[in-house]
Amino acid sequence: MSPKEKKGEITINDIAKELNISPSTVSRALNDNAKISEATKNKVKAVARDLGYELNLVASSLSKNKTNVIGVIIPHLGSQFFAKALSGIQEVARDNGYNVIISQTNESVQQEVEMTRVMNSARVDGLVCCLTMETDNVDHFNVFVKKSIPVAMFDRVSYAVPGPKIVVDNYEAGYVATEHLINLGCKRIAHLAGVVSSKVFEERSEGFKDALKKHSLPLLSQFLLSSDLTEQDARDAVRLWMNLPQRPDGIVAASASSGLIIASAVKALGIKLPEELSIISLGNERCNEFVTPSLSAVDMPGYEMGKAAVTQLIKCINDGVSDSSITLKPIQLLIRNSSFKH
Amino acid sequence: MSPKEKKGEITINDIAKELNISPSTVSRALNDNAKISEATKNKVKAVARDLGYELNLVASSLSKNKTNVIGVIIPHLGSQFFAKALSGIQEVARDNGYNVIISQTNESVQQEVEMTRVMNSARVDGLVCCLTMETDNVDHFNVFVKKSIPVAMFDRVSYAVPGPKIVVDNYEAGYVATEHLINLGCKRIAHLAGVVSSKVFEERSEGFKDALKKHSLPLLSQFLLSSDLTEQDARDAVRLWMNLPQRPDGIVAASASSGLIIASAVKALGIKLPEELSIISLGNERCNEFVTPSLSAVDMPGYEMGKAAVTQLIKCINDGVSDSSITLKPIQLLIRNSSFKH
Repeated sequence: MSPKEKKGEITINDIAKELNISPSTVSRALNDNAKISEATKNKVKAVARDLGYELNLVASSLSKNKTNVIGVIIPHLGSQFFAKALSGIQEVARDNGYNVIISQTNESVQQEVEMTRVMNSARVDGLVCCLTMETDNVDHFNVFVKKSIPVAMFDRVSYAVPGPKIVVDNYEAGYVATEHLINLGCKRIAHLAGVVSSKVFEERSEGFKDALKKHSLPLLSQFLLSSDLTEQDARDAVRLWMNLPQRPDGIVAASASSGLIIASAVKALGIKLPEELSIISLGNERCNEFVTPSLSAVDMPGYEMGKAAVTQLIKCINDGVSDSSITLKPIQLLIRNSSFKH
Repeated sequence: MSPKEKKGEITINDIAKELNISPSTVSRALNDNAKISEATKNKVKAVARDLGYELNLVASSLSKNKTNVIGVIIPHLGSQFFAKALSGIQEVARDNGYNVIISQTNESVQQEVEMTRVMNSARVDGLVCCLTMETDNVDHFNVFVKKSIPVAMFDRVSYAVPGPKIVVDNYEAGYVATEHLINLGCKRIAHLAGVVSSKVFEERSEGFKDALKKHSLPLLSQFLLSSDLTEQDARDAVRLWMNLPQRPDGIVAASASSGLIIASAVKALGIKLPEELSIISLGNERCNEFVTPSLSAVDMPGYEMGKAAVTQLIKCINDGVSDSSITLKPIQLLIRNSSFKH
């Protein structure tokens, strides 16, 4: 059976009946046929819109092979990095006449697979994606590749999938943050890192380690901890570090949220920030400004990454899929009170 | 032309060719026809999935009249209230075999209209929606009503659209917060309210006013300001209030974000919290715990509202659209240091 017969589906005949004109006229009007007067076209489109026909995916994909919808798949919507990325994505998309539908994977690769299917079903014209931390195999993107539907990846990307890649220089982020603490006079700098399997966090750690090397500071045992950066991980790190005979005098947190938790956990122990300990986080959250002392951070260009990703995606939608790779610098070092030398 | 002929579209014939079996066998396999062996079904489905056919909306809507996708339209993804609501929505949806696609309106009714079209095109089985602050006319939901696709609304709702409504008792939130300050001894309590046109904020203000009445405290002129609750609005309110000969000794902020800005602006003026001024916000953000002093708040049950909305929605999907209205209580009064009596 054809989709027009789909139960409850509005058909061209319904519109024809409503306006008491022939179905073929309706069809021509919907397809902007030159033989049809503007007046009729407008009447037909108004009724179609009202009945929910023009909006019908099958109908519109018959009249033109596009939905003007861009799909976005990201790990989670809570974080400000992704909130900023989404603003950038939606701004550029809207300026180019695209709507955006979003889905979150909650860092579950199974959810990611599921959502690629949903986005494919929704017939998005293109996909913007940031992979989960556990994504290794990327075969679930093949359905887009096979149909030449472009996929632009940002932040956590896989070069096994053709299309634009927008990444940030995470190595520099880790390096700059660590060097900032070194310049303040910190000698025993600890780093709560993310999972090593994630390129993003591996690069941040590399930057941390190289900054120590460059300034010939030792990487003390137990001072580099890799974790999932959960609240518990951050609290455990603080407990471990603050019970060492030689405490760290500087901490680089691999994420904004872990930085906030480390700062409050340390304060709860009565340790003075920044007099006894300087803290800086890789990634900036709104909270960082409001806490006391305000938390220094390396800001990540979420907004710019989102804009770049969808800009490249739309290029691919118009001109065909092509590989391109853009590496953005961390926006800036936001020096606040948690890392001031007093 | 039928969608099967749509350019680049995978057809049953492609799968048949791939497996060297008849198209009718493929069709039966995809529709779980009992005449087809499990082995064949699995082979066909594997290839279909691989080619992106099973995922094809038309195909799946031909085999069964459902997409198992629930659409969500909310004002913005940044706030923690909506982040929590989304977690609740996704949790229940997943448990019931539904995937969720999300869109944000950025408080623009035009975007809301646009997104109802997109969700309709994606043929969602149901829609969960929180209206923008400016939404007045709700005709754009008629396409769902006409097709008996259920729409569940939460937080900002319109009773002009049939279907479940999940709201929070905003009057109680405003009342409880204000009474808390009164019980601390505050006599000159100010309220930065949201736009009056929004029922949510109007109710919060009503709660504020009635708490003052109940305790026979005057509502001082200039102490009730209505605004869009932007950062600038909050700063302007602080400037106005703190320059009055008789400053407020208590402030009820209509939103978490405005409360955070008020608190930091007041601190910047050297005013001691909570000794000279107590602050409480309606709505709780993660920052509230991290700031000094930590910011008291009435927590809103975003997670519970999301769960309730999608639970009612799925009932409607299964049993047909029916009206139902659930009013949840604000979760709890989180008394923190910004409103402690010292």
